[in-house]
Amino acid sequence: MGENIDDYLKDAMPEFRQQLARLVAIPSSSQEPEHVGDLLRIVQETASIARGYGFTTHILQSKGDPSENFVAGLVATLQVDPNAPWIIVYNHLDVQPEGEGWLTKAFLPAVTDEKIVGRGATDDKGPMLTTLHAVNYLRAAGKLKVNVALVHETKEEAGSTGFDKLIQESIDQQLLPTPHSILVCDTVFQGDNPAISSSLRGLLAAEVTVTTGTQAIHSGLGGGIAVNPMNVLTTVLASCYNMATRKVNIPTFYDGVPRIEGEAKLNLQKVADGFDLERYKRDLRAGACYRQSTLDALRRNWFEPTFEIHNYKGGLEGTKIPPMASAQVTMRLVGQQDPDAVFAYFERHLHHYLAQLDLLNVKLDVKKVKGSRAVSVAIDNPYVLAAADACEVGFGRKPVYDGCGGTIGALPVFQERFPQAPIVLLAISRVDDGYHAPNEEFKFSQAEKGVKVISDYLQRIATLPKLQP
Amino acid sequence: MGENIDDYLKDAMPEFRQQLARLVAIPSSSQEPEHVGDLLRIVQETASIARGYGFTTHILQSKGDPSENFVAGLVATLQVDPNAPWIIVYNHLDVQPEGEGWLTKAFLPAVTDEKIVGRGATDDKGPMLTTLHAVNYLRAAGKLKVNVALVHETKEEAGSTGFDKLIQESIDQQLLPTPHSILVCDTVFQGDNPAISSSLRGLLAAEVTVTTGTQAIHSGLGGGIAVNPMNVLTTVLASCYNMATRKVNIPTFYDGVPRIEGEAKLNLQKVADGFDLERYKRDLRAGACYRQSTLDALRRNWFEPTFEIHNYKGGLEGTKIPPMASAQVTMRLVGQQDPDAVFAYFERHLHHYLAQLDLLNVKLDVKKVKGSRAVSVAIDNPYVLAAADACEVGFGRKPVYDGCGGTIGALPVFQERFPQAPIVLLAISRVDDGYHAPNEEFKFSQAEKGVKVISDYLQRIATLPKLQP
Repeated sequence: MGENIDDYLKDAMPEFRQQLARLVAIPSSSQEPEHVGDLLRIVQETASIARGYGFTTHILQSKGDPSENFVAGLVATLQVDPNAPWIIVYNHLDVQPEGEGWLTKAFLPAVTDEKIVGRGATDDKGPMLTTLHAVNYLRAAGKLKVNVALVHETKEEAGSTGFDKLIQESIDQQLLPTPHSILVCDTVFQGDNPAISSSLRGLLAAEVTVTTGTQAIHSGLGGGIAVNPMNVLTTVLASCYNMATRKVNIPTFYDGVPRIEGEAKLNLQKVADGFDLERYKRDLRAGACYRQSTLDALRRNWFEPTFEIHNYKGGLEGTKIPPMASAQVTMRLVGQQDPDAVFAYFERHLHHYLAQLDLLNVKLDVKKVKGSRAVSVAIDNPYVLAAADACEVGFGRKPVYDGCGGTIGALPVFQERFPQAPIVLLAISRVDDGYHAPNEEFKFSQAEKGVKVISDYLQRIATLPKLQP
Repeated sequence: MGENIDDYLKDAMPEFRQQLARLVAIPSSSQEPEHVGDLLRIVQETASIARGYGFTTHILQSKGDPSENFVAGLVATLQVDPNAPWIIVYNHLDVQPEGEGWLTKAFLPAVTDEKIVGRGATDDKGPMLTTLHAVNYLRAAGKLKVNVALVHETKEEAGSTGFDKLIQESIDQQLLPTPHSILVCDTVFQGDNPAISSSLRGLLAAEVTVTTGTQAIHSGLGGGIAVNPMNVLTTVLASCYNMATRKVNIPTFYDGVPRIEGEAKLNLQKVADGFDLERYKRDLRAGACYRQSTLDALRRNWFEPTFEIHNYKGGLEGTKIPPMASAQVTMRLVGQQDPDAVFAYFERHLHHYLAQLDLLNVKLDVKKVKGSRAVSVAIDNPYVLAAADACEVGFGRKPVYDGCGGTIGALPVFQERFPQAPIVLLAISRVDDGYHAPNEEFKFSQAEKGVKVISDYLQRIATLPKLQP
């Protein structure tokens, strides 16, 4: 392997493609209990690659109920100098469920010269492997001057449940040193511009179930007397949001949502001025959209909460009134919105609204599925400036400082455990890669540039001081 | 077979049980394309029984696309005297889909001394066979003084689509004489009281589809920008009804809905005074109900339209925004509500409401699945009085004159084709038999009494005059 980055890439990219194809072929879907064994397999496979690059690897597994609390994670360390600063590199090895609409097989990766297509290619296995190669390049060339700790979880797509436990165990077992900084490559480019994010939204996922009986009822003999739980559920959920005003109607829901005004609004306007919203929508494959300015679109995607209904269950064909109806909903959270508090507001609102309908014997249950706070990170520290300079070197452009509408449940845990360590959210993926969509892909050109950016960044931060919390 | 009805039943009931078990074992579900062959089988099996009882049978099959327009029907005639009046006996041989919650197998009938459990036992195979045995008893005893035409369709549970065609073909082929009256046994007892219905509600079934794109979207990257079709669908459907006021909110929806006031209200109050609403709810297995008086419950079940959401499709697991969402809805119709007009009101309202939301590129499609008008029949003619007297003989009580919240799509066709023929809606089934519910049953005691009632009725109407339209 050459000391020059281009020589390294020329040698290493064929291996990179094979490695990523092997990783994508493991269906490490964390929301489907039948794939729980694949979570362990993806950790083992990744650990094997990391060991080849000089890392000492530790595979962590919880001892809890496999289907509910199974936590597999990789903590791997590469210490080049006991006096050098540590950096945590976070990625996740789990993926979304396959879903529908694939032109190829989701877990039979299709590799061309240009890209790899398969579930998890860009979210987040490609960026993870990119980071690993950046470290390996520096190590092989004798240029690695920071100690690197990989922290790879397998529950990110399931709300990072158990991540706090994984970190606690790693610290208890003295596997994980206190880092000077944390690098997270799990966000997306803005068009052709590299991006460093200053915020991520939180997430509350809940299930609402309305029960009215024990079996189907003839809607002729019952209609007007028996209550239809699908009608109740539709009514109470519709009461939660207003599509005309674009607002959530749950009382006190907006507590903790910051107003974007003054300088923050001016800054956002600057980003909006250079943002190609139509291209973003196209890259996202969004057909139907809200009618709004680019400024409002960014504000609403980055700094406003949402209320989304994803699925209804319990319905029956034909003319039967079902005995039960349930719905899966999520709310993205921002600012200081607390997932537990928002869940309580939601639950209270639903019960209150139902009570007003004055129906007899309707049972309403609201279950919290997962909850994660929004995160904001500073972008005025030398670590972020180093990442920006690295973007210019590797991606050829200065980054946009954006928000991100998504959620990474691990980040609040890092912020609590390592308050002094700045988190740098550096995008390696592109919007048009198709996060969570069918035909998800990762472009090798992006990987090559990413290796350059991250290796440059790691060199730059080797001499930076530890920040105060 | 004896000339005495009790002797006949003693001899015939063992055969009745076997016949009904054979009929119920045929899964003649008319809403599931995979059972299209069973519709023909149930017609053949029933025709075979009818031939054994002296009927000349004609099996009608459409020549259309089997999955879309397949119509199988039985028209069978038994002429005892060319000068005797004809009666049409209508039943349906198709059943609801199996559904969930069965303790036994839906199409593996469980027969005890008391009853038979299986899909279609009471709706409508048991009452159909009861009628056939009533005719057979009279025939065997030399007491049949009317000519009987069986008209049995196999699409009742699918909205009686093609029934007009079946009747047209029967008339064209001179298989079906013009009747003096029509007997329909497809309604239910009121508690322990026999019932003759004066009205049935109509039915409009529709499917609403909202399309926003072509594939799933990440709700973090898209939320606040991309429109969620499940949210749109929930909002527009919730706008159609108000569970607090119990009213449908679609403009002009109530055109043609008669007010129940004056004498009609006094009559309804009399029925309500003798009606055990709590028992009705129990028999129906209705857990959650509207809070209302017995009068209001009956008024709303018999004489008010409904709006029911039965099922949603297109939802996705996890946090994905789906590209499409659809819902199956029905509305029971009353009075002069016209299914085509109500469909147009519904469609117009949905589009109008959606337009107010000012969203970009949301596609909304509304499809009419089936439509049938409400029916009201006179109860002040000698045929109904004969049925009432027969109830006293066979069931031991005078009937209640009730409404029925259900729908029989064949009846408007009969009323149009044979306007002079009074339709008598005579209940043989009981509410607690479980129409459309799992563990549907038919009690043999009800069959025995039914044979007595119908054979008595057929004797009484032999000398009645043909009515004027």
